[in-house]
Amino acid sequence: MKKSDIRTFGIIGGDKRQLFLAKSISDSCYDVLLGGFDRLESHGSLSLCNVKKAISESDALIFPLPSIRTDGSLNTPFSNENILLDGDDIEIILKKPVFTTMKSRFLKAYPRLSDGEIFDYGARDDFAILNALPTAEGAIECAMREYEGTISGSKCLVAGFGRIGKILAHKLVLLGANVTVSARKPSDLAYVKALGYNALNTENLRTVKRFDIAFNTIPKLIFDRELLMNTDTNTLIIDLASLPGGVDFDTAEKLGIYAVRALSLPGKCAPKTAGEIIKTTVFDIIKEVYR
Amino acid sequence: MKKSDIRTFGIIGGDKRQLFLAKSISDSCYDVLLGGFDRLESHGSLSLCNVKKAISESDALIFPLPSIRTDGSLNTPFSNENILLDGDDIEIILKKPVFTTMKSRFLKAYPRLSDGEIFDYGARDDFAILNALPTAEGAIECAMREYEGTISGSKCLVAGFGRIGKILAHKLVLLGANVTVSARKPSDLAYVKALGYNALNTENLRTVKRFDIAFNTIPKLIFDRELLMNTDTNTLIIDLASLPGGVDFDTAEKLGIYAVRALSLPGKCAPKTAGEIIKTTVFDIIKEVYR
Amino acid sequence: MKKSDIRTFGIIGGDKRQLFLAKSISDSCYDVLLGGFDRLESHGSLSLCNVKKAISESDALIFPLPSIRTDGSLNTPFSNENILLDGDDIEIILKKPVFTTMKSRFLKAYPRLSDGEIFDYGARDDFAILNALPTAEGAIECAMREYEGTISGSKCLVAGFGRIGKILAHKLVLLGANVTVSARKPSDLAYVKALGYNALNTENLRTVKRFDIAFNTIPKLIFDRELLMNTDTNTLIIDLASLPGGVDFDTAEKLGIYAVRALSLPGKCAPKTAGEIIKTTVFDIIKEVYR
Amino acid sequence: MKKSDIRTFGIIGGDKRQLFLAKSISDSCYDVLLGGFDRLESHGSLSLCNVKKAISESDALIFPLPSIRTDGSLNTPFSNENILLDGDDIEIILKKPVFTTMKSRFLKAYPRLSDGEIFDYGARDDFAILNALPTAEGAIECAMREYEGTISGSKCLVAGFGRIGKILAHKLVLLGANVTVSARKPSDLAYVKALGYNALNTENLRTVKRFDIAFNTIPKLIFDRELLMNTDTNTLIIDLASLPGGVDFDTAEKLGIYAVRALSLPGKCAPKTAGEIIKTTVFDIIKEVYR
Repeated sequence: MKKSDIRTFGIIGGDKRQLFLAKSISDSCYDVLLGGFDRLESHGSLSLCNVKKAISESDALIFPLPSIRTDGSLNTPFSNENILLDGDDIEIILKKPVFTTMKSRFLKAYPRLSDGEIFDYGARDDFAILNALPTAEGAIECAMREYEGTISGSKCLVAGFGRIGKILAHKLVLLGANVTVSARKPSDLAYVKALGYNALNTENLRTVKRFDIAFNTIPKLIFDRELLMNTDTNTLIIDLASLPGGVDFDTAEKLGIYAVRALSLPGKCAPKTAGEIIKTTVFDIIKEVYR
Repeated sequence: MKKSDIRTFGIIGGDKRQLFLAKSISDSCYDVLLGGFDRLESHGSLSLCNVKKAISESDALIFPLPSIRTDGSLNTPFSNENILLDGDDIEIILKKPVFTTMKSRFLKAYPRLSDGEIFDYGARDDFAILNALPTAEGAIECAMREYEGTISGSKCLVAGFGRIGKILAHKLVLLGANVTVSARKPSDLAYVKALGYNALNTENLRTVKRFDIAFNTIPKLIFDRELLMNTDTNTLIIDLASLPGGVDFDTAEKLGIYAVRALSLPGKCAPKTAGEIIKTTVFDIIKEVYR
Repeated sequence: MKKSDIRTFGIIGGDKRQLFLAKSISDSCYDVLLGGFDRLESHGSLSLCNVKKAISESDALIFPLPSIRTDGSLNTPFSNENILLDGDDIEIILKKPVFTTMKSRFLKAYPRLSDGEIFDYGARDDFAILNALPTAEGAIECAMREYEGTISGSKCLVAGFGRIGKILAHKLVLLGANVTVSARKPSDLAYVKALGYNALNTENLRTVKRFDIAFNTIPKLIFDRELLMNTDTNTLIIDLASLPGGVDFDTAEKLGIYAVRALSLPGKCAPKTAGEIIKTTVFDIIKEVYR
Repeated sequence: MKKSDIRTFGIIGGDKRQLFLAKSISDSCYDVLLGGFDRLESHGSLSLCNVKKAISESDALIFPLPSIRTDGSLNTPFSNENILLDGDDIEIILKKPVFTTMKSRFLKAYPRLSDGEIFDYGARDDFAILNALPTAEGAIECAMREYEGTISGSKCLVAGFGRIGKILAHKLVLLGANVTVSARKPSDLAYVKALGYNALNTENLRTVKRFDIAFNTIPKLIFDRELLMNTDTNTLIIDLASLPGGVDFDTAEKLGIYAVRALSLPGKCAPKTAGEIIKTTVFDIIKEVYR
């Protein structure tokens, strides 16, 4: 297969992100078939059809994030039906490149597909990095909504200096916040200082005092009972860590600390950007694989 | 009267802003009496009392924004009662400095008070400028909520380069937006260019094409029928102009352009900052008047 | 005369700025004759000629900044000759629009020209505002050169919040400096706070302590003997005020305070930008006057 | 040895950075002996002495960057003498922790010292990262000095997204430049995009057109003959790569492209910051090693 053999993309299920993905692909002069969006009557100039047709009449298939539900049915929030792939679908899919997420869950539901060409765009590092931008903006939107003062002039703690922490700290400082970043690796701490933030070693994070907002980006229980007991009660905590999360919400509530869980921000806050990121990643895979 | 004679402030009615104002004044080591907040059971260490007591036992009085309702009753959203000042109140108030807003409406309801010392903090230039910051942040929060992409990478138009336009354009560019500012005065257009924004003469604003978000800050009907007919339908319009506003919302709806009215943003989005701004302004007046 | 009658610009004397001005005008598809640059052998595709020819064969004339020397001769640093306008030149010039600076000095030397159309582009507000950008960058270049630390992390005082102070404070804060701005007008002080700088009333500027760099933009003797005696000796002072300047340099030297005078920064540090600003201003005048 | 056993630091040779290092250590309430600075008559309240005394009367020793000259003599630019360590010095040094740079060159000259405790602070990752900030500022100072326009509004290419590229791109964009970053790794390219820069794959860097300034941070010959032949002649090239550098300077000169080599920027442009970074790194080592 060559890059030029792909002319029509079948987009199978998904939410608003996949609609923006479809638009973005279409703007690059490819055809798009949207399958599994039957609750929409129309969507601009894009073709809506049933899943079977989208699978059979396209050259490559894109599944959404998450790709399937726990019962193995396709993730089609814009459809009223519960759609499962049947044997015929599988045979057709096996002949086409498939771009999906949560590959192992997908293959567990449809093991036969492991003989095909399946690319997990959701597992790629560049996908995660690109999504750090809409995540950081979503976190700021959340802070603006929940915090009763302005970000400008506020004192913010960003726990963690990974993908999201890097972009989030950068944006907060530009908005006029006084930003402290906690990190663990000496090289990260050096970057934190070189970029002009206040630096704190996560290991030594025993108290959170005099911060207006604390963002957690570390996928570990950072705000445990002990730390929460040494946190100002008027500090707003925004937890960006994926489940089970980085905050003991029960204890926070008991102590009267307001803590908010902010998950899946790209899809919720910026589906357009999130859809364009899926497109960028899928197209990058195609360029790498089919020269 | 001297500055040092003011030891206790009576805060008469108002919303969350006045509560943060009370907290901020209290943090500066003055006493505060909150009158007209009877729906609150307590508010930290601050004294809640009835309006009569707050008036009689304080050295200076602060009324909120707006100060009174159209029927002449006090603006007390945290009270279940409809409170009017009576003759006794008036006599006591006449002996104390009064800080209020919408002075002419206030004096129309209580003409006798024109013999007293009444300062309209809401009419001051510095009050308006300081509020431009929470207004700009509120506008960005609104844009983040309503726009389906990220601010970073978006194309924004800011119509008007007054107080709000200046701060808003500054924040947007820091968040990574591509910002065009329309202004009218040659000196404003020169500042727009010197600060690195794209410049557009408001006089020549005949079309709004290829913008993701258009913010109007000009208190005139800028987005009239004609301009809206030359605006991309997928441009989000956020109108920050005070009523009657700068957008023909009926026409916008007919044309399928999504337009949002964003008013009173400091009070809604950042009551803490808005309360602190009231304190700063009242204290500045005191410093100017009572040396 | 109409706008379209101007096809060839004669640029009479000046430094590098006028060469970039010539290039910029030429890039807009006008012809340019450069007179008074005889020490250059060539300058790209631009026509070098003597002053007489540049005057007679062009449709409009642009004199530099400063326009003439104190002896009335043209300001032609790129020429070895001392050039004066003679009666013939004057008669020809009278028929053409003239764009110059320091108009009163110019007309004092050549009073006959007061019958012609003379525009002082150097006196315009927009010209001064646009030049605030290269001035601010030049001030930062000066600070980077003279200060032994980095701007990032330094404590800077910007005295004055006029054209230059506004842009300079903005750039410094973006580079990571901790910026304090001193201003006098309440509305300026409000802007200073709304933009997130530390605010100081210039009236109360009695000591300058714990600043690494102090920029003066106020055209008055701010750093007089008294203030210098209350300034840390390791504070670097950069004086941007036009002559006689805002710093008592003799006293500074005696006290061991390092103070630098930074004048005419646009021409020295960014002649390309300065030339483009002259073009923008001259073209704006043409648009205003010849519709 | 314990942390608390170190009370006096001997600073042996070096340039202005070591003087600022001495000041910074002294500000933290340690004693400092400066050896090898005999051309200075005094240096504030710091003690100047000969190298022998600085070695014998201190608890820990800090050598500069570079630590020694090619002939094995100490790097003492502030001394008129050529100083070599003798056997007695060595014996004393062996009993103390030594913080130096270019450890292998140092030990080649004084192999006996390999039995001692020698820490190469110059080889540490955090040292390099912290120095990226003064390097980036120095690069910007260089660009401001050499480029004839303003950084604001200029089009800049930053080749490489390592330590220096990251900070440099960040600063340039804040100053209003339009920034393109070239990188090679997919994750770096994703960060480049997420941070809002234009992205370019270094592999595909075949032409450099329409850039005002190109910064090279990659320690490889990027601007070779071929690329230079496809570079605009009015692009200013600033090479930050350590020797042998990333630009073919001979070819650049022949082609009329102005290229500047900018090396050792922290020491040259910001010795104060560079000295403080040495202190931070040495103190971090002490904290790690002597608990």
